[in-house]
Amino acid sequence: MRTQVVIVGAGPSGLLLGQLLHKAGVDNIILERQSAAYVLGRIRAGVLEQVAVDVLDEAGVGQRMHREGLVHEGFDLLFKGERHRVDLKGLTGGKTVLVYGQTEITRDLMDARQASGQTTVYEAGHVAIHGFDGARPWVTYEKDGVTHRIDADFIAGCDGFHGVCRASVPRSAITEYEKVYPFGWLGLLSDTPPVHEELIYVNSPRGFALCSMRSRTRSRYYLQVPLSDTVDSWSDQAFWDELRRRLDPAAAEALVTGPSFEKSIAPLRSFVSEPMRFGRLLLAGDAAHIVPPTGAKGLNLAATDVKYLADALIEHYHERSDAGIDHYSQRCLRRVWRAERFSWWFTSLMHRFPGEGEIAQKFQEAELDYLIHSEAGARTIAENYVGLPLDFGLRR
Amino acid sequence: MRTQVVIVGAGPSGLLLGQLLHKAGVDNIILERQSAAYVLGRIRAGVLEQVAVDVLDEAGVGQRMHREGLVHEGFDLLFKGERHRVDLKGLTGGKTVLVYGQTEITRDLMDARQASGQTTVYEAGHVAIHGFDGARPWVTYEKDGVTHRIDADFIAGCDGFHGVCRASVPRSAITEYEKVYPFGWLGLLSDTPPVHEELIYVNSPRGFALCSMRSRTRSRYYLQVPLSDTVDSWSDQAFWDELRRRLDPAAAEALVTGPSFEKSIAPLRSFVSEPMRFGRLLLAGDAAHIVPPTGAKGLNLAATDVKYLADALIEHYHERSDAGIDHYSQRCLRRVWRAERFSWWFTSLMHRFPGEGEIAQKFQEAELDYLIHSEAGARTIAENYVGLPLDFGLRR
Repeated sequence: MRTQVVIVGAGPSGLLLGQLLHKAGVDNIILERQSAAYVLGRIRAGVLEQVAVDVLDEAGVGQRMHREGLVHEGFDLLFKGERHRVDLKGLTGGKTVLVYGQTEITRDLMDARQASGQTTVYEAGHVAIHGFDGARPWVTYEKDGVTHRIDADFIAGCDGFHGVCRASVPRSAITEYEKVYPFGWLGLLSDTPPVHEELIYVNSPRGFALCSMRSRTRSRYYLQVPLSDTVDSWSDQAFWDELRRRLDPAAAEALVTGPSFEKSIAPLRSFVSEPMRFGRLLLAGDAAHIVPPTGAKGLNLAATDVKYLADALIEHYHERSDAGIDHYSQRCLRRVWRAERFSWWFTSLMHRFPGEGEIAQKFQEAELDYLIHSEAGARTIAENYVGLPLDFGLRR
Repeated sequence: MRTQVVIVGAGPSGLLLGQLLHKAGVDNIILERQSAAYVLGRIRAGVLEQVAVDVLDEAGVGQRMHREGLVHEGFDLLFKGERHRVDLKGLTGGKTVLVYGQTEITRDLMDARQASGQTTVYEAGHVAIHGFDGARPWVTYEKDGVTHRIDADFIAGCDGFHGVCRASVPRSAITEYEKVYPFGWLGLLSDTPPVHEELIYVNSPRGFALCSMRSRTRSRYYLQVPLSDTVDSWSDQAFWDELRRRLDPAAAEALVTGPSFEKSIAPLRSFVSEPMRFGRLLLAGDAAHIVPPTGAKGLNLAATDVKYLADALIEHYHERSDAGIDHYSQRCLRRVWRAERFSWWFTSLMHRFPGEGEIAQKFQEAELDYLIHSEAGARTIAENYVGLPLDFGLRR
């Protein structure tokens, strides 16, 4: 078998890349280790920057997103028991974010791919990538007991943090930066109306909390918990009780509770591997970098990586120029570090860190107090939260 | 002996308070454990906010400061080997800072106090404060083998972090917040022209450095060093060599070196004790709070504490109102926490922290890159560096 681009991973990054390439007439095949149902079952982010919305529109999968997504013009910061609104729209000259679940984006992309008749191989076993430091890379995998080979011009590694692509690069060719946070997020999904029409980010002496949503009838809440906790140790009742304790009285009063239909604990990590290109292997999204979810940057970074990557590959085929491919890594990484910095900073500002003492809580409250009361301070949060323009990666 | 206000400590806080009270006709006596020469020998800060300049003018000691002080309209941030200017004046609508050494301020205040014939007892031994929870506090001390007693209406604790005043408050009445940093500043003073006309704050993988000055012919440089280092282990040559390695090529080239006439290692600490008033004992400056020197906030915070305290005491005597005294602690502390937050943040941004790994350096560089390239980001540094307006402590 032969194609122009083999994409490893059928999460939103891989699917989005496939769609952008397809629209430009570039052949591609996606290999995915899991089943389609498994991929759809992953509960992930739900806040899209305008830049990500634009890329999804460009891929032709924006119809349902615009119909069902919720435009948010701000969010609340809760600290010292009081809520303060960050007016994203007012502070950024009109920018907003769109709340629309990653699961829904994945579904929209899957539907579009199926409608266009492109090949996705699910449950592809033992995926291995070969020869990407030369001109003729290839990929092998097993399916139904048979080993298959696909020859390609490029391999796109969209296979996430634990994927095979980054792991196939010689250690000497890669530099990795990592910080693991000493706590996790316990997330709960329930078909209850959100406690507030916008998100509430909570700094509390009891730990961070986040009131989020997927729609007007589906809520997503998070609690900072010790990494030693297990989901089994948190009944729904215990979750709701603890969430109420971290909220202000009005929000605690307004909170509508109900049975959870998903509950999980996720660790928090900052991770960047440099560079993002190795010959004819190009990494995108979580395969190259991870952010803690506090800043809602993971999916957005993946979308812009993919946009840069699609542009570079299309330039290669249509204009016979490798300038985009040569600059891909550098173009992504300046943006990546900006988002990593914000995600780390916002995480550090909002969580309790074991062993840091009471002065850490006081510093956080003083910083939040400053940010809310300084126009410049509020703008630094807002402009990072709504995200950088697409051409940021090109600027110096 | 009897006076209206006994001031413990003849550093700049105590002397400034004495001068402000004297100008308003409030009697005061200052007790100082050390000699005048010892106090003058302390090498400390040298960057004054406009608010501190105004208070010194109000105290009538600003003549030489305005003649000899250097107005700075900005400073340089050096990171990733390149210098970037923070335009304080442009970013804050015209605000600047004044470079004038704390030693000079102390001398000016001593001269003014002597000229006005007020009492300062130097080398006062075993200073002890009594009865400050009642209406008639008093202070005892020994001098030339004789124990003396001064009765007063109020005791002002301007005796620094290690002073007797805060230490005399029952532990149960006080809450202390503290962070000790895992490094020190090695400072060197030399009669050499400054390497640059403005300050240079340096983030380097080798550690923080600061190029500062006292005048056009006297320079003050600092290097981040491990706390285990001693002054003896740093020859002048070793200091200059290491400083050059942390600078950009142009600054390293321009650096004029010479013999040091002072070299010392100072630890860095963030510390706040709450409240700042206990009955008729009122703490000001380092007696109540310490900041790491990175943000140049220590002397400035002391000056505004003293201004608030002088206003409160004058209100007590002239208007027979204790409103200022009752609000003193709250008024100071909001300002204190704002400055503590900035000093902690700027320290965290600029220093190497042992054990935090390479990603910490990358986060710092990404944050500096953001701050320099975002107008809002640059303004957050500038507006904190030039300081808060005097009425900030009153606002909500």
